[in-house]
Amino acid sequence: MKTKPIPLTVEVCFCPLLFPHILTKENYIVVVVDIWRATTSICTAFAHQVKEIIPVAGSNLAKEYKQKGYLVASECNGKREDFADFGNSAFNFMKAELKGKTIVYNTTNGTQAIILASKNSSAVVIGAFSNLHALGEYLLKQNKNVVILCSGWKNKFCLEDSLFAGALSEYLLGSALFKSECDSAKASLLLYQSAKNDLLGFSPHAVHFHRLHERGLEEIIPYSLLLDSCPVVPIMKENKLILESALLEI
Amino acid sequence: MKTKPIPLTVEVCFCPLLFPHILTKENYIVVVVDIWRATTSICTAFAHQVKEIIPVAGSNLAKEYKQKGYLVASECNGKREDFADFGNSAFNFMKAELKGKTIVYNTTNGTQAIILASKNSSAVVIGAFSNLHALGEYLLKQNKNVVILCSGWKNKFCLEDSLFAGALSEYLLGSALFKSECDSAKASLLLYQSAKNDLLGFSPHAVHFHRLHERGLEEIIPYSLLLDSCPVVPIMKENKLILESALLEI
Repeated sequence: MKTKPIPLTVEVCFCPLLFPHILTKENYIVVVVDIWRATTSICTAFAHQVKEIIPVAGSNLAKEYKQKGYLVASECNGKREDFADFGNSAFNFMKAELKGKTIVYNTTNGTQAIILASKNSSAVVIGAFSNLHALGEYLLKQNKNVVILCSGWKNKFCLEDSLFAGALSEYLLGSALFKSECDSAKASLLLYQSAKNDLLGFSPHAVHFHRLHERGLEEIIPYSLLLDSCPVVPIMKENKLILESALLEI
Repeated sequence: MKTKPIPLTVEVCFCPLLFPHILTKENYIVVVVDIWRATTSICTAFAHQVKEIIPVAGSNLAKEYKQKGYLVASECNGKREDFADFGNSAFNFMKAELKGKTIVYNTTNGTQAIILASKNSSAVVIGAFSNLHALGEYLLKQNKNVVILCSGWKNKFCLEDSLFAGALSEYLLGSALFKSECDSAKASLLLYQSAKNDLLGFSPHAVHFHRLHERGLEEIIPYSLLLDSCPVVPIMKENKLILESALLEI
């Protein structure tokens, strides 16, 4: 008699400070999310054929890489750092001259979350609305529990990251492979389902929407909410992000 | 010319671990919430004329009080402790013999959150669906920013506490006195608005609903979701909870 397989779990962590308290203890992959900055930019970069991205936590480290001759994208509180080649908006990663290049990347919240995740799990991938279905298909094949880590804003819950967590939860829970016993996943799913017919119209609910407007950075908002504009799966390999398809060629 | 008053703020903190990161820095009152345990029980106790409640963090401390002759309610992971006089369900606090008494109270999450709040703010009150409008009216008169601290479950986000945070946020933001620039408050409000027509029907979305059922403790669920069944405002005064109206008599 065949035994029924135990479903894999989906858990959502609303900000990095809560990550040590996740209930998922083994065989998990972390999906890191920072919708209006890091993770949409990373998907954009790979869709535009950047070779690899080295995420770093903090300006000092980014500056050290710059001094070693790397191309560096770095912001602090939404502003490009003086020493950096460019800032963190996804639009900066679309340039033809970046094709085949290695980029060092520092953001206020997202890259810190990527590094936290990679210290705690050997499997870390990047999630954004721009790679939702490519990522979902990839995760269905991994036979791993999924933890969605929202970068948040300085250890505050952010609506935009939790909306994505809801979108990915909906995709995974639509498969019989996954279940969830996590209130954060349930809340994310409910919020996403109330918003999904008009993500852009929902956006002004988020504090960060207004922060981006105040800083003249609002053009990233509609772009970041487009589904499947960059069907790539960036994964961590040692200290670098590379394309999952590139991993197969190593 | 009269200047327009600056609105007070409403902020929601999804679990105690995030409390040190709240944005509200001054002149605030903390509303502690633990819907299916501590705060509904505390409102029930005061509605049944308990004199005062001493919240404690942990079984050892509760046991020490017991040895000193206090009446003690104490649970660990939903089970009454052997040394305790009774467990933590609100139904235990309705007994006539508790009238006028002092009770020492220990729960897994809620009393710990109350103590955390009272270490950080001189103004701490207890919130539950059972005192929603009494509490809301009280808060409108305080001229203080409001931080709603959800007890959660072992530093995980809990739907039932955030639903209450949404209900209280809706009440306060319905007044011109308050505004909110907090995504947690916004998410709570949206969740509450999607659930408020049938809070009981919404409850199975919460993991804790099933935990209570597994332990045979589910009778507390519909009781805890009743609006305004106990129109009292318990507040912290030194290390004790007393009725706000009793404070006026001191």
